[in-house]
Amino acid sequence: MKVIWNDQIVDRAEVKIDMEDRGYQFADGVYDVVRAYNGCFFTLDDHVNRFFSNMERIEIDAPFTKEQLKDRLKELLEINQIDTGNIYFQMTRGIASPRNHSFPELGSVPPVFTASATFVPRNIVKMDKGITASIVPDTRWLHCDIKSISLLGNILAKHEAHKRGFDEAVLHRDGNVTECSASNMWMVKDGVVYTHPDGNLILPGITKKMIIIAAAKAGILVKEEVFTLKQLDQADEAFSSSTTHEVMPIIEIDAKPVGDGRKGPVAAKLQNFFIKEIEAQCGSISVSN
Amino acid sequence: MKVIWNDQIVDRAEVKIDMEDRGYQFADGVYDVVRAYNGCFFTLDDHVNRFFSNMERIEIDAPFTKEQLKDRLKELLEINQIDTGNIYFQMTRGIASPRNHSFPELGSVPPVFTASATFVPRNIVKMDKGITASIVPDTRWLHCDIKSISLLGNILAKHEAHKRGFDEAVLHRDGNVTECSASNMWMVKDGVVYTHPDGNLILPGITKKMIIIAAAKAGILVKEEVFTLKQLDQADEAFSSSTTHEVMPIIEIDAKPVGDGRKGPVAAKLQNFFIKEIEAQCGSISVSN
Repeated sequence: MKVIWNDQIVDRAEVKIDMEDRGYQFADGVYDVVRAYNGCFFTLDDHVNRFFSNMERIEIDAPFTKEQLKDRLKELLEINQIDTGNIYFQMTRGIASPRNHSFPELGSVPPVFTASATFVPRNIVKMDKGITASIVPDTRWLHCDIKSISLLGNILAKHEAHKRGFDEAVLHRDGNVTECSASNMWMVKDGVVYTHPDGNLILPGITKKMIIIAAAKAGILVKEEVFTLKQLDQADEAFSSSTTHEVMPIIEIDAKPVGDGRKGPVAAKLQNFFIKEIEAQCGSISVSN
Repeated sequence: MKVIWNDQIVDRAEVKIDMEDRGYQFADGVYDVVRAYNGCFFTLDDHVNRFFSNMERIEIDAPFTKEQLKDRLKELLEINQIDTGNIYFQMTRGIASPRNHSFPELGSVPPVFTASATFVPRNIVKMDKGITASIVPDTRWLHCDIKSISLLGNILAKHEAHKRGFDEAVLHRDGNVTECSASNMWMVKDGVVYTHPDGNLILPGITKKMIIIAAAKAGILVKEEVFTLKQLDQADEAFSSSTTHEVMPIIEIDAKPVGDGRKGPVAAKLQNFFIKEIEAQCGSISVSN
């Protein structure tokens, strides 16, 4: 497998991360994940723009331009012959020794970039059948809008849901639903779709944005409004959204069916309209994809 | 320089961290720092106990016993001929490819341990002169009692203080002072010393504990009570505490002197009694140390 390490495409085995890379000792870095269909990136500009914006938020100077990054990601996809899959890419502040909480002086240390591509088919079965979820308190930091590698809160929440026997964690702060452990969260009531507004408490999902665009075309009303656990409990449908899982129905929460416990008509319609968005950029995607 | 990498002491240059080490992509790990004086570890048991407890909190199975770790850390100190200095050590959940938020199955992946020793003299000048600080909102997650490598919130807070021209960040949640970016926080009013109680909002500092022990011997009353920014503004003295900086006077907060703007008598007395605790374990430490 070939990966990107700084400005080169190399064999994965060649990559050597330093034990004092600030990404490894301080989670001092940001990342993004972009998805490809038919060997073509979907919403690549959005992901690259968000990545650059996140680097700026934590004051990492990008050592390349957006265009250079996009070309390099495309090259990686091709060289690994990935048709449908994900590219993960991250940037850390680089190696600073001895370890010190303070940022190294600006420009004194080159940031470290890594990226890898993985074949990940569309999970048609799950998208149709839906997943289960469990309610977990949102104990993460107050900059969830920064897509950083400081993810221990996210993975502990997901693990908590897994230990209870469910697929995903639905996070809440004081009863207000924020998002899932690695995806945005949505509910449907009386035909209206609700999701948490952007801000410091959730990631501004690119799939979220695309669903809002798809919903408008489908004639479905979306309200970016905070909703509570109580409202979620009475919802007709629920679903999560992410780059990898698109529109993913949540059919049970803590062993209680959402609505009738099956994928609902609004989620189904949004899935179909979301596919149209993909196809507009990447061409027809077969169901076997 | 020699470091520990998993179960071996190796040249630092030999260490190769994998790009999909979960520490590097999810901040999925914990760490600790222990200090040596006269080539002797101070409060080693406390640090090792806390490290094991933190591994347990995030469900990492230690691949060695506490005794084995202590022996190995002592060996590292000796081999690097460090007299006064710090040993940093961390454990991550290990390498899991392809990247996935879910924990790898228990026992399927060995965790990754790294440790390094650095000569760090006692900063006598700063401990005498004191440091400056700036008030910064505490935006970290709600498990600050876990000493994890998910530290982006901490380092951004410190960087914010630095950008304003001050040494350290004093963190608060809704006006309640929690701790500093990498140390516990204390204030003195009318001879009584206040610091935030242990719990999920702060790290249970081992230096904090030792200061409480030292204070009892010095006949100084310590109250582990939440105090506000307003109370801090009216304090007679303030100081932070950490493994490396022991009792560190804070003489100015946001350019306003604390008390008379110099190290106060309570901090001075605690520094002296803290030295007695060090000397009881490690023998006499000269001022030139």
